[in-house]
Amino acid sequence: MRDVPEDQGLRVNLLESLVARSRASTPEIFEARAAQTPGALFVMHEGRRWTYAEAWCAIGQYAALFTDLREKSGLERDGFRVASFLSNRPESLWCWFGAHASGHVYVSLNRSHKGELLADLLGRSGAKVLVTEVSALDALPDLNAVGIETLVLCDPANGWRTDGVRVVASDDLVRRAPRYGPYPAPSDLATIMFTSGTTGRSKAVRIPHNMLCRGGARVAEAFDFRATDVVHLWMPLFHIAGQLHQTMAMVVVGGALALYPTFSASQFWDQVRDSGATVFGGLPNVINILWKQKQTPNDARTTLRIGLVGMIPSEIHRAFEQRFGVRLCDTYGMTEMEPLTLPVAGVEMPLNSCGRAGADFEVIIVDDEGLPVPCGENGEIVARPRVPDVMMQGYEGDDGATVALWRNLWWHTGDLGYRDENGFFYVLGRKKHMIRRRGENISAWELESIIVKHPAVDECVALGVPSPLGEEDVKVVLVLNPEAHLDRDEFCEFCVSHMASFMRPRFVEFRDVFPLNDVGKVDKLELVDPVGEQWDLDPY
Amino acid sequence: MRDVPEDQGLRVNLLESLVARSRASTPEIFEARAAQTPGALFVMHEGRRWTYAEAWCAIGQYAALFTDLREKSGLERDGFRVASFLSNRPESLWCWFGAHASGHVYVSLNRSHKGELLADLLGRSGAKVLVTEVSALDALPDLNAVGIETLVLCDPANGWRTDGVRVVASDDLVRRAPRYGPYPAPSDLATIMFTSGTTGRSKAVRIPHNMLCRGGARVAEAFDFRATDVVHLWMPLFHIAGQLHQTMAMVVVGGALALYPTFSASQFWDQVRDSGATVFGGLPNVINILWKQKQTPNDARTTLRIGLVGMIPSEIHRAFEQRFGVRLCDTYGMTEMEPLTLPVAGVEMPLNSCGRAGADFEVIIVDDEGLPVPCGENGEIVARPRVPDVMMQGYEGDDGATVALWRNLWWHTGDLGYRDENGFFYVLGRKKHMIRRRGENISAWELESIIVKHPAVDECVALGVPSPLGEEDVKVVLVLNPEAHLDRDEFCEFCVSHMASFMRPRFVEFRDVFPLNDVGKVDKLELVDPVGEQWDLDPY
Repeated sequence: MRDVPEDQGLRVNLLESLVARSRASTPEIFEARAAQTPGALFVMHEGRRWTYAEAWCAIGQYAALFTDLREKSGLERDGFRVASFLSNRPESLWCWFGAHASGHVYVSLNRSHKGELLADLLGRSGAKVLVTEVSALDALPDLNAVGIETLVLCDPANGWRTDGVRVVASDDLVRRAPRYGPYPAPSDLATIMFTSGTTGRSKAVRIPHNMLCRGGARVAEAFDFRATDVVHLWMPLFHIAGQLHQTMAMVVVGGALALYPTFSASQFWDQVRDSGATVFGGLPNVINILWKQKQTPNDARTTLRIGLVGMIPSEIHRAFEQRFGVRLCDTYGMTEMEPLTLPVAGVEMPLNSCGRAGADFEVIIVDDEGLPVPCGENGEIVARPRVPDVMMQGYEGDDGATVALWRNLWWHTGDLGYRDENGFFYVLGRKKHMIRRRGENISAWELESIIVKHPAVDECVALGVPSPLGEEDVKVVLVLNPEAHLDRDEFCEFCVSHMASFMRPRFVEFRDVFPLNDVGKVDKLELVDPVGEQWDLDPY
Repeated sequence: MRDVPEDQGLRVNLLESLVARSRASTPEIFEARAAQTPGALFVMHEGRRWTYAEAWCAIGQYAALFTDLREKSGLERDGFRVASFLSNRPESLWCWFGAHASGHVYVSLNRSHKGELLADLLGRSGAKVLVTEVSALDALPDLNAVGIETLVLCDPANGWRTDGVRVVASDDLVRRAPRYGPYPAPSDLATIMFTSGTTGRSKAVRIPHNMLCRGGARVAEAFDFRATDVVHLWMPLFHIAGQLHQTMAMVVVGGALALYPTFSASQFWDQVRDSGATVFGGLPNVINILWKQKQTPNDARTTLRIGLVGMIPSEIHRAFEQRFGVRLCDTYGMTEMEPLTLPVAGVEMPLNSCGRAGADFEVIIVDDEGLPVPCGENGEIVARPRVPDVMMQGYEGDDGATVALWRNLWWHTGDLGYRDENGFFYVLGRKKHMIRRRGENISAWELESIIVKHPAVDECVALGVPSPLGEEDVKVVLVLNPEAHLDRDEFCEFCVSHMASFMRPRFVEFRDVFPLNDVGKVDKLELVDPVGEQWDLDPY
């Protein structure tokens, strides 16, 4: 097998050291890792620890079960898929790698789904096996109706049964002899992950093995991950960040994961201390919450050295780094293509930047015609892979959407952003979340970033609503600090002094919470029409 | 409108001089051409001549008709398509540009179709209007059943009617006042062209305006076309070569077309003399036929200066150029993406090469995993556009095929070839036409090229047939020179002395003609099983 040519700037040494080339399937990587550092710590969870060797053994037991079930089903390997519906626990990892190590496609379901939507995703996934936990049983739909033949419980059997569905419990699993293979090719479909914007049916992203392996290696390389690193992993293992940026990146270097079911503001620092975590991940709210906690002299004594955080709030970015002695970096990408941008070793990232284009991708900014725009000018972020199998193979069951987003053979992210003269990228938000007012494009994200600085405002969503003058009027929906009061005139003054006149919101509505869609993002369509009091500030 | 950035190496000055930018729709180009050189000759046909101004007027009459018909239909512009089913005649051009100049999509049908296949294509095309000629009427299917509301005849009315289908004849057309617009955007769908390989249903290629304009400009640039050039245009106007390489390239520079219904060996030189043709196009058989004609002292006195010929037979390439004083060049591309390669001004093309990658495309050679191969090594030719809207938008109604051929965001041509160290490309034939024998890949095209050198062989098709040993055995099907005899032992000796041992055909079958598919290509599937005598030469 030929290495990827050097002249493409590829130096995925971490991957090469494991598989002797720069392309791999996940079981190849895991097996090589377990062979190289069998006694190294891989997972911590609720006081228990698993080395890479122990993990590989558990993975082999899951793989043996899946092979067994598939052979009983009489189906071909590529017609037999394994879905998981699990919280962050080691079995989620055994199931994932076990499905891959037995040559099967893994379907990674969001554990917060339930009812009809869960039934729809399961039915579309083509899975024959569903791996879940006792606490999830109430959320499950009629499994027969969605094609599930076997339910695997990661907990001891509890007598739960469904007509026509075989149940395998953890007691059975742990008695099995590990069995591995056949391994997939790097280009083979590895995982189906459902993704959704704020509108439309969620899409089934077809992720190939090489994307997980090479993406993980690229993240490890960019952040200088080491075998001594421990990830505080509270972000869901069913999403791309948990799988690629956190798990695969650690497996490539031989580091460890400390699994937690969710982010807990009150327990975070204790968890970090107990696990010795050096790496954490999160979204802006995590940074805001940690920042607002009472300052202590021990703040900078944490073992944490780096945080992978999306859209870091720029006003506290540097102060947070200083207070906690931790570096905060953003990466940029999406389930379909990841990681598009990365930090660069030895170069400080400018505030608000998510880094430079990763070596595996060409990333440019284009206008509505698809023509590149100059440095500093806003446009849509589009990307192409420089090597094979580092992006999705398409949306399963939605080739039309795939073709539309692959037009001109660029992946159209749908995100607005710009690139500076040093090659750093800045993401401004979803293109469809731009507000178009009297010839001006307003970034909802930029407007929101300004308004949340108002002391009375806890959260803000900005959107465009149809204007009788054509185009759109600007509307903001606010969640106020419960202890604060917002005065109409004072808010107008705030807007006048903090933003360009064309950005000033005309409508202001107040809500207690934002309506969320099925993947937990704010559903902007639900915010167009007011449900309660709404200010009309025009003109001011 | 911003120009395409200079740093992408774009110098489509011809296009810029017409539309002040490097992107255009076909009516923009034609209108600018007619304004710039209204009195210049555009078309010659059967003794008649049309200037650009006259052509633009005729185009406006067709455009007026289509707008009229669409307004009567009550349909939106993008739901109203115009199909043409015409031989090479000026009306084919008026219809094409008329459809575009009225903002409609043009469906370009192969005039040799008939019956069920024609009905299928018409039905899939979504056309409401069919423009055709009296000689085609017998070939037409039930027009009502395929959604055609109006039949436009490019000949005087002859009383032909179909229930439920309105008929407009040329008498009506020529009485109309020209009416233009609204013009489409460069990125808009311009033309649906059906393409087909040797297997499977033909695919509806969605060609955007800019591809026709920019592609034509690139051809004109590469071949140094001038306003004084005249194309001997016998290749069908319903194919991409007739539209892009010949018509659009001439419109961009203001040259002329001499239209002929087909290639005629006996009339070719008279036609060249009468029209003053400087450019011609063709396939290898045209070169072979002209070469075999009796040599005369006037051979080199032709006005022809350049021939655009696919897969030029290398053994007579230079001799042909010398004898007729004409330069032969190949380009490479396909209906989906054209022209991928082009000659380079001032650089002689090596024999068998189709040129270097055009400035609008990145072209590389990859292996089965999608990894680039070194110079000189065979692999699949894949390409990406460097600018927007210079390739198809996809196969209409077959997004699945589009996604498959766009994997890793490269257009997979399905052709095998290699690139030399000077950047010149060489095409070896269809990847699926490679023969796989005992671990060796044999190019059917290379094998055929050798065998047709045998004096008794007029035509040869090589293919792989299933071997009891696994992989394939090599089979050749021959059309012999009617006046020659082929001896079995002598043929074996020929093979032994002219090709590597692994290439030697095991089976030899003889046919009078090759079976053709619906676009006139040899149907290799029909050649697998012998229909008559077949030699089994194994072993020799």
